[in-house]
Amino acid sequence: MFFHMKELQYHAKPSRPDPIFARQLQEALGGQFGEISVSLQYLFQGWNSRADAKYRDLLMDVGTEELAHVEMLATMIARLLDNAPVGDQETAAKDPIVGAVLGGMNPQHAIVAGLGAMPADINGNSWTADYIIASGNLLADFRANLNAESQGRLQVTRLYKATNDPAVKDMLSFLIARDTMHQNMWKAAIAELEAQENIVVPSIFPRELEKQEVAYDFYNLSEGEESRRGRWASGRSMDGLGEFKYYPQGVAYGDKPKLSPAPDYIFNTPPWIRPKKKEE
Amino acid sequence: MFFHMKELQYHAKPSRPDPIFARQLQEALGGQFGEISVSLQYLFQGWNSRADAKYRDLLMDVGTEELAHVEMLATMIARLLDNAPVGDQETAAKDPIVGAVLGGMNPQHAIVAGLGAMPADINGNSWTADYIIASGNLLADFRANLNAESQGRLQVTRLYKATNDPAVKDMLSFLIARDTMHQNMWKAAIAELEAQENIVVPSIFPRELEKQEVAYDFYNLSEGEESRRGRWASGRSMDGLGEFKYYPQGVAYGDKPKLSPAPDYIFNTPPWIRPKKKEE
Amino acid sequence: MFFHMKELQYHAKPSRPDPIFARQLQEALGGQFGEISVSLQYLFQGWNSRADAKYRDLLMDVGTEELAHVEMLATMIARLLDNAPVGDQETAAKDPIVGAVLGGMNPQHAIVAGLGAMPADINGNSWTADYIIASGNLLADFRANLNAESQGRLQVTRLYKATNDPAVKDMLSFLIARDTMHQNMWKAAIAELEAQENIVVPSIFPRELEKQEVAYDFYNLSEGEESRRGRWASGRSMDGLGEFKYYPQGVAYGDKPKLSPAPDYIFNTPPWIRPKKKEE
Amino acid sequence: MFFHMKELQYHAKPSRPDPIFARQLQEALGGQFGEISVSLQYLFQGWNSRADAKYRDLLMDVGTEELAHVEMLATMIARLLDNAPVGDQETAAKDPIVGAVLGGMNPQHAIVAGLGAMPADINGNSWTADYIIASGNLLADFRANLNAESQGRLQVTRLYKATNDPAVKDMLSFLIARDTMHQNMWKAAIAELEAQENIVVPSIFPRELEKQEVAYDFYNLSEGEESRRGRWASGRSMDGLGEFKYYPQGVAYGDKPKLSPAPDYIFNTPPWIRPKKKEE
Amino acid sequence: MFFHMKELQYHAKPSRPDPIFARQLQEALGGQFGEISVSLQYLFQGWNSRADAKYRDLLMDVGTEELAHVEMLATMIARLLDNAPVGDQETAAKDPIVGAVLGGMNPQHAIVAGLGAMPADINGNSWTADYIIASGNLLADFRANLNAESQGRLQVTRLYKATNDPAVKDMLSFLIARDTMHQNMWKAAIAELEAQENIVVPSIFPRELEKQEVAYDFYNLSEGEESRRGRWASGRSMDGLGEFKYYPQGVAYGDKPKLSPAPDYIFNTPPWIRPKKKEE
Amino acid sequence: MFFHMKELQYHAKPSRPDPIFARQLQEALGGQFGEISVSLQYLFQGWNSRADAKYRDLLMDVGTEELAHVEMLATMIARLLDNAPVGDQETAAKDPIVGAVLGGMNPQHAIVAGLGAMPADINGNSWTADYIIASGNLLADFRANLNAESQGRLQVTRLYKATNDPAVKDMLSFLIARDTMHQNMWKAAIAELEAQENIVVPSIFPRELEKQEVAYDFYNLSEGEESRRGRWASGRSMDGLGEFKYYPQGVAYGDKPKLSPAPDYIFNTPPWIRPKKKEE
Repeated sequence: MFFHMKELQYHAKPSRPDPIFARQLQEALGGQFGEISVSLQYLFQGWNSRADAKYRDLLMDVGTEELAHVEMLATMIARLLDNAPVGDQETAAKDPIVGAVLGGMNPQHAIVAGLGAMPADINGNSWTADYIIASGNLLADFRANLNAESQGRLQVTRLYKATNDPAVKDMLSFLIARDTMHQNMWKAAIAELEAQENIVVPSIFPRELEKQEVAYDFYNLSEGEESRRGRWASGRSMDGLGEFKYYPQGVAYGDKPKLSPAPDYIFNTPPWIRPKKKEE
Repeated sequence: MFFHMKELQYHAKPSRPDPIFARQLQEALGGQFGEISVSLQYLFQGWNSRADAKYRDLLMDVGTEELAHVEMLATMIARLLDNAPVGDQETAAKDPIVGAVLGGMNPQHAIVAGLGAMPADINGNSWTADYIIASGNLLADFRANLNAESQGRLQVTRLYKATNDPAVKDMLSFLIARDTMHQNMWKAAIAELEAQENIVVPSIFPRELEKQEVAYDFYNLSEGEESRRGRWASGRSMDGLGEFKYYPQGVAYGDKPKLSPAPDYIFNTPPWIRPKKKEE
Repeated sequence: MFFHMKELQYHAKPSRPDPIFARQLQEALGGQFGEISVSLQYLFQGWNSRADAKYRDLLMDVGTEELAHVEMLATMIARLLDNAPVGDQETAAKDPIVGAVLGGMNPQHAIVAGLGAMPADINGNSWTADYIIASGNLLADFRANLNAESQGRLQVTRLYKATNDPAVKDMLSFLIARDTMHQNMWKAAIAELEAQENIVVPSIFPRELEKQEVAYDFYNLSEGEESRRGRWASGRSMDGLGEFKYYPQGVAYGDKPKLSPAPDYIFNTPPWIRPKKKEE
Repeated sequence: MFFHMKELQYHAKPSRPDPIFARQLQEALGGQFGEISVSLQYLFQGWNSRADAKYRDLLMDVGTEELAHVEMLATMIARLLDNAPVGDQETAAKDPIVGAVLGGMNPQHAIVAGLGAMPADINGNSWTADYIIASGNLLADFRANLNAESQGRLQVTRLYKATNDPAVKDMLSFLIARDTMHQNMWKAAIAELEAQENIVVPSIFPRELEKQEVAYDFYNLSEGEESRRGRWASGRSMDGLGEFKYYPQGVAYGDKPKLSPAPDYIFNTPPWIRPKKKEE
Repeated sequence: MFFHMKELQYHAKPSRPDPIFARQLQEALGGQFGEISVSLQYLFQGWNSRADAKYRDLLMDVGTEELAHVEMLATMIARLLDNAPVGDQETAAKDPIVGAVLGGMNPQHAIVAGLGAMPADINGNSWTADYIIASGNLLADFRANLNAESQGRLQVTRLYKATNDPAVKDMLSFLIARDTMHQNMWKAAIAELEAQENIVVPSIFPRELEKQEVAYDFYNLSEGEESRRGRWASGRSMDGLGEFKYYPQGVAYGDKPKLSPAPDYIFNTPPWIRPKKKEE
Repeated sequence: MFFHMKELQYHAKPSRPDPIFARQLQEALGGQFGEISVSLQYLFQGWNSRADAKYRDLLMDVGTEELAHVEMLATMIARLLDNAPVGDQETAAKDPIVGAVLGGMNPQHAIVAGLGAMPADINGNSWTADYIIASGNLLADFRANLNAESQGRLQVTRLYKATNDPAVKDMLSFLIARDTMHQNMWKAAIAELEAQENIVVPSIFPRELEKQEVAYDFYNLSEGEESRRGRWASGRSMDGLGEFKYYPQGVAYGDKPKLSPAPDYIFNTPPWIRPKKKEE
């Protein structure tokens, strides 16, 4: 169960309305790595967790905090939209500033949402659960979380550079700092698990069941060998169980495929067009 | 430019048709972490890369290999679908095995794709580029890649357990081993970058611009303190720049929000219903 | 079966082209509550109706009228797009008006649709049947319809304020009036059904099968008790079968959940990381 | 800000695992009218609300309760999935019960989610924010909410009939009762607003700006006049401002449309194929 | 404007209910090439048509007929769903036939649609306007239409083979015949346009503006030269303006790309990791 | 397997950055008929092909070439985005040119993709596999391919007119010429197949199983008889097996549908509201 406190986690009041930036800030709310994504991702990972209670608790703590970030961004966006203009080509032509605003804002903010935030990204793409990840394997999922906080912080720093409003910058500086914490946190949680498992997910799949002879090969499948210059091309593998080996070109272990003809009830290209002989 | 060789990277011929498993294998081809996702993710990261040539080359090498995996899976799925049945309730009722197959397969494999693989997941959801990530920041993106290979290997090991066909298991053992390599590889590439930058993405955003006083705080926002037992709750932060601090409960820095009334041309709830006083 | 008459239900000729407004008007055609949504929603409800013939006929009448609205809007949009500009940054920089038009229009109108209307919303999101509702229960669906006409009329009034073109305003005034009728109509149909059933959908689910002791409770789950001031917080319930009761805080009837460990073939976080004890 | 309590709002433990029903129950969690939809719908309406504080508080209370329902359903689904089988055609053929389970469950529950709940519906369609509504006009939105609770309760009663497990039925009886409350509650809130405004949304758009002569007409656009038998076809309109009038056939106020030729730079069908004459 | 007649264009009453086939038939209603797609595709092409009136009339005629097909399929599906079962694993285990039905049907037909047809495909993917095409160029669009009728007839013939119900087969034989007509019709319309234009769309783009030296080259970009055996590899081109030429391997006209470094405000991978030298 | 060469198939370097045109060019990369669509469409058709090897080889050749086009466009877009501005309303107001650029560009290019190309269209809709087609029937699919190349060339010619940059025009002239080839090529492949089959897809479905009496009828279902003036309205059918016949109005072969009542466990509109009598 949840309980809601009216106070925001941090201030969310801009110095002035700015519908152009309101549109851009939607990415941090409802984009692929916006706050809706991380809150629901962590909560679902928590609810589904069959592992030690401290991981479930961690996930619930942070997922719950991210809900507060959704709230802060929704509030900020609504205020950036105060008195946002509506208009057509005539309105745009009369005043270059208004024209620029009409071009740069998302008109759905006025027409559909009545000057409210939307669960959508910069371009008005509705948020989708295709964005989120909860696999039941914590090491896999904490890597997803570390990525989400990395992409998220990156986007918010770009947004920080895009705005001139000190009050908006102030709120963003709070979100950036929290993402610093959350990257540190997932990094710490990953370190704990990797110390007990191994770095390869899932660690408990028996290694002898995989095709071990190709488990540390690097295939150079594009022209040039610049890729030979990296740590991944030679030396002990990161999991400590093999040696990286660089192949200057790929290896084909398989044959040229040839499929059997389709049965009649499928009505594919007719048999007198395709050759008679069966699959080799 | 690309060039196509007819040989498959590895064998992709099942012992026997199996439309039920053909459906399941679609997840590894066209699901969120299937081979279409990783091939296009790495290729887009490579094409967009503004960094050192070795990273671009690495991305093109591996993205090109993943295209070969798409091909192997498409071929295997088409063969698993050989002579897949079509039928209605009467067909299903006559023979329990056929009934089970009709229930467990994806009928679009017959009706839409003519016994061919589809760019879709287990449930017939078409593949979408919402799944992929290319931010221009390599450390962020390599974390996305490590996650993708972790989720992907996890799903393929589950599929390995789901099939009884030794020839299918053999192909999956190859894909599992390649994912072992790719997890090792991204881990190595991440280590290289973290050694030069710092662990927090983006590393070049000036730390003094973030709200540093909250950059290492853990807020316990759910009942109980199990989350205090983790590495993230105390000690030096992973980036070496701070100390983790555990707060037994959250802190509200912001006020209770109250929005200004909407202008008349938006036709929100009318003014005589909402109170007269302006935003505090 | 349908028959098409060439005459439009109402005039759809603007005073002048206006690609910026053409984009905005797409919301009324292909948005969540645009005319494609209501026409297909009513038609599907009609085709699926297993109830009295007058309701089926009502749905077919109105669904068929909405097809005429789709047609009017498509025609108006195509005319607003007459000679819409194409151009790049150089074109935009030369003439501020053209620059504003290029910023405010949807370039797909030129590049993809050849100056035609699209089955999409303001932001070019393709129309999706996720928007529509047909449950087989008429009272539920008429509420969906009343909502659709309410949201739709609201959006069209906002569009009315956004345009300066009297001919466009004239067409919108027709659509607004029809939405007035359709709100009245669904209100009337709902009143008929509620008089025979009860207000709670579905009315024929036996009340003794629901957990009746919580059927009229209001749980205050957010700080403050402003919500106590409403009709929903005390007094006879609207269905006449209970008394509203206000709880100053929520009630937890359930336990703290704890899930069983995952079986081995799922390769979740390994067992030596999760605790041994079984679910309580 | 939110705070999370570990106790569930109600019990969520089935008598036995049942992966087939786990799939079905996903509709109540992540379908169009599942709990994710109502929780985010109410929270966004609340965050965006520019009206009286009691409505915002109401929305936050109920949106917060719905988060607890998401949690209950996620927990129940995870438990229904305990030890869910994986398998191919051979597995299905060996045991008719296992075959039926493999056919009726969602294999993503095992392969993707590791026996966890997913933010998706019965057919594995990811939840999308296209489902939700927040317009800034409370009367419009409360109608959306009443519809959502009506569709939601309807679906849960059907699920109640689909399961034989008394513990699952018990949890559903709780959700059904809460939906009874929520239908009553939105009904009450709507009554409050309609008493102050009028029934037509938005009430503050000046009626003289709409095409009033068609604001109460019913057009019979399908064969037969069964639709004449309803309250909507005659008598005082529900808003008290007009008289319903039934037209046995539709009226075309507009002309036959004819569009202007496309400019050359659009490369539509060439001019020597289309007629020379300009638009009438 | 449209008018609706109550009679169906053709009979749509099955011999017996069959929820498994109801699911499959959804592909013909709401799949990529189902009747919703062709009806809306033709209507939008008609509404947007700026060409000769006979083409607009043709499109409106056929688009209107396809609406009748939507109606027939919706009716047939609703009847196939009569008394469709609901149930869980226990229900499925008791009776193998019921188990097979629960596995092979779409449970949303019962839980969401109340035994009605849905605007969705076999797998419950909602219909999306991403499926349809209206470009303003009739030759391009008539090719889209010919393809749609080809894919559509192919799918319906496969469905014909999948059902054992003579009454369902009878309705499908009607739809198959209409698709025969529609393929003939678009073929005829295409022939008319190609006779006046040329086969290359758009015919009015000046040929001297394209890179004519590569306009008839075939590049063999995959191993082996089986592709040399086709009409496309040699001889006069189909447009009569060139000669096909077969290149045994591809030609690279461009350089190796190298992108400029990103500006600082984008926070991509930092400059000390990427090389100093500017784009060549 | 694939191999990647570093050289681009053609030059992809603009004369100057232009973020507005970068957005527009996305349509050719990630739109419905962009290069991602054709490359994956041809590759999937090839992988799934059960017909003569020359068709599979043809599909692999061209699919592989289209991957090179994806690469060229991604490179061009990244360069058009060099130093693209970020900014809010204040930035836009200061400089009308910058304001126009902020309005006309896709801000995700900066905020999300770090000045890289995206797998998305003009409006930022992510590419989806809903766009592509692979049915197993080559004649059907080659028609889809001819359509794709027609729509694609049409869009690129419009983009050609939209840009003033000679270097961009040069690259587009290459793509336009390749589309000329590909239209010719599919036309040739279609001619080969039609010469061996018949024009109606699928050609091997026995004609006596379709409702032959309606297989060449044209139903005039919209007012006016302009559609009578076409080749499709009279004369020998294009498949040579019938005579086109023009009906001045549609024919209804079916009855007025009436559905059976829903069973109780579905909780549709209750029985005392719907009439007692059974379906006629």
